[in-house]
Amino acid sequence: MAIDLYWASGSAYSWRVMLALEHKRLPYVSHELQFSRQEQKSPQMMAMNPRGRVPVLKDGDYVVFESVAVLHYLDRKYPAPPIFGRSPEEAAVIVRVIEEFQAYTEEHLMGIVRTLWGGEPKLGREALTDAMLVVAREARTIEMRLAKGDWIVGDHYSAIDMVIFPAIQLLRRALGRPEAADLARRFLPLEVNYPALGRWLARIEALPGYDRTFPPHWRGT
Amino acid sequence: MAIDLYWASGSAYSWRVMLALEHKRLPYVSHELQFSRQEQKSPQMMAMNPRGRVPVLKDGDYVVFESVAVLHYLDRKYPAPPIFGRSPEEAAVIVRVIEEFQAYTEEHLMGIVRTLWGGEPKLGREALTDAMLVVAREARTIEMRLAKGDWIVGDHYSAIDMVIFPAIQLLRRALGRPEAADLARRFLPLEVNYPALGRWLARIEALPGYDRTFPPHWRGT
Repeated sequence: MAIDLYWASGSAYSWRVMLALEHKRLPYVSHELQFSRQEQKSPQMMAMNPRGRVPVLKDGDYVVFESVAVLHYLDRKYPAPPIFGRSPEEAAVIVRVIEEFQAYTEEHLMGIVRTLWGGEPKLGREALTDAMLVVAREARTIEMRLAKGDWIVGDHYSAIDMVIFPAIQLLRRALGRPEAADLARRFLPLEVNYPALGRWLARIEALPGYDRTFPPHWRGT
Repeated sequence: MAIDLYWASGSAYSWRVMLALEHKRLPYVSHELQFSRQEQKSPQMMAMNPRGRVPVLKDGDYVVFESVAVLHYLDRKYPAPPIFGRSPEEAAVIVRVIEEFQAYTEEHLMGIVRTLWGGEPKLGREALTDAMLVVAREARTIEMRLAKGDWIVGDHYSAIDMVIFPAIQLLRRALGRPEAADLARRFLPLEVNYPALGRWLARIEALPGYDRTFPPHWRGT
């Protein structure tokens, strides 16, 4: 039975799952939904995920959503290559750094991205600066991890890389807008301020199948 | 080698891990820290978790923190009885409902609890009502799950029960304060508004070892 993936271009959460599917070389039927037409809230989609969010993955009759849960599902169902570690100890560090990203960084990072693209609710100028300070500090701890090895945890590309990579890409793209120049100074050019993080981005961009995960509406922009 | 658990009374996150340790019948050395003396930020604790938060679990030389990561660690290291499901499908639903709780409920619930106990930052009256609406709605979806079975996901007590139970206990206790009477009307008495949730709380309270997990400073209050 085939895997169906429902996703949207520019959704960091969708991107995580696409990276995992490519890494595990799992074929899937791609269903791209348009946020502009609210297709993620169609009756068919709401029947699968009542929250009307993407990604949603369907494997035969089984439906799973919330990106981190999808990553766990794929790893339990299709264990090779593992994305949640090769030992209990490594698995827990991967989950721990995901939990830390979600608890201490994600809301601030997504707030910056949303605000710079004109989304709601918007952060005020002071809240934006505060959010940038948090993100810059948390990025520093990831930078320190990547200065010691190719991947965020352990010796292999794992779920934590897949969780953080799309968020960093969204942030870099939003901060690259001319009106964000002031705010961006703490972060860009990424290769100068966070050299190990920059090399890690390039490392993931060079992985087989990466091109298929790249947001289509970003092409040529 | 022994398991050491560093925790604090009234920490919902610590409570999750204690429930898991009891369920797996893992002996551990208990180190209760006092928030009032900021013991979770002592040099010894900061060396283990630079964020100065509890719980922290030490198993031999290995240190893990962030409660959900600790639950994953315990389940990979000591698999019986499983707390993250008996199949990939069940595991992913457990992780999914944890992710949903963290993304859509926890911040609101903890905001209510913190505000009612005089903590900072405080929610204003309107934000408090909004938060209560979200929590009441999310509790309704848990109620619907528990109306169909004894546990939140599947046929067994699992990590999702351990994640949500302490939060509900904190909420019930905070809403029980006389000054919260107005706000509490949507929720209490729990046994009337959420009968299945009420039975589930009693079911967990009756589990072997539960008494050892109960916050010491709540006794006799």
